[in-house]
Amino acid sequence: MTAYEVLELGSPDGWHAKGKVFVDREIETEYIGISANAFEPGQETSGWHAHSVLEEIYLFLDGKGQMALDADVVEVGPGTTIRVGQGVQRRIRALPDSPGELRYLCVRAAGGPLKEIPRDVVGDAERPKPW
Amino acid sequence: MTAYEVLELGSPDGWHAKGKVFVDREIETEYIGISANAFEPGQETSGWHAHSVLEEIYLFLDGKGQMALDADVVEVGPGTTIRVGQGVQRRIRALPDSPGELRYLCVRAAGGPLKEIPRDVVGDAERPKPW
Repeated sequence: MTAYEVLELGSPDGWHAKGKVFVDREIETEYIGISANAFEPGQETSGWHAHSVLEEIYLFLDGKGQMALDADVVEVGPGTTIRVGQGVQRRIRALPDSPGELRYLCVRAAGGPLKEIPRDVVGDAERPKPW
Repeated sequence: MTAYEVLELGSPDGWHAKGKVFVDREIETEYIGISANAFEPGQETSGWHAHSVLEEIYLFLDGKGQMALDADVVEVGPGTTIRVGQGVQRRIRALPDSPGELRYLCVRAAGGPLKEIPRDVVGDAERPKPW
C-alpha cells in the first residue's frame, strides 16, 4: 500500500450524478471504509439492513431526511452524526420536501483489516417501512 | 454501548466556532474516530505529526487548502479525499486566499477497538514548514 493516496470525489453537489461512491474501492485503504451518498428529495435506500460485524458512523452534510433505526425514526440534517452498532436494522430517506439533496457519508470499520471482514450485511425484507 | 447514538455537530458553517470536535469524545464509539475541523483562510495545523498505528482518511468539504505529506504538498478542495498510512508526517493549511473556511473531516481507525490504541502521535518539531 502506498504511504498516501489521493482521490478526488468532487464537490458534494456533484455526488448524486456519480451514484454511491465507495472511497475504499476507488483507492486502497487498510481499516477504514467510507461511502459518499446523495439522494434527491423523496429518494430512499433500497431496504432495511444491519451489519453483524461492522460499526458504522453516518455523517449528514446537506438536506433534510430521516434515518430509521430499528423501531425509531430520527430526523437528520446538516451535521447530524449517528453511530450505529452491530445488529441495528437501518434505512434512510430524503424527505419529499427536503430543501435539496440529502448528502451523507457512511464510515465503517470493524476492528481489523477491512479486507478480512466477511460480507456481513443482514437484510430484513419482512420488516415494514418506517414512514 | 448503546445500539445507536446521535450527535448534532451542526452545519459545517458553524464548525469553526466550536473548535476541533472529536465525534468519538462526544459520543461513545467502538472502532471509528472522526474529527470535524474548520480553518479560516491562512490558518494551519500546529505542526507536523504522524501516527504509528492509526490509518487516517481526510475528507475535505469546503474551501481551498494544502496538505503536506512528507516531501509532497497536495492541493485540496471540496471532495479531496486522502488516505494517509502510518508514519507519514502531515500538516494542513487553508490557503490565505481560500474563498472561505477550509472544512474537513479526519477519520481514523487502527484495526482494533479505538480505546485500546495507544497514544501514537509522533511529532517532528525539526521538520521545516512546507509552504
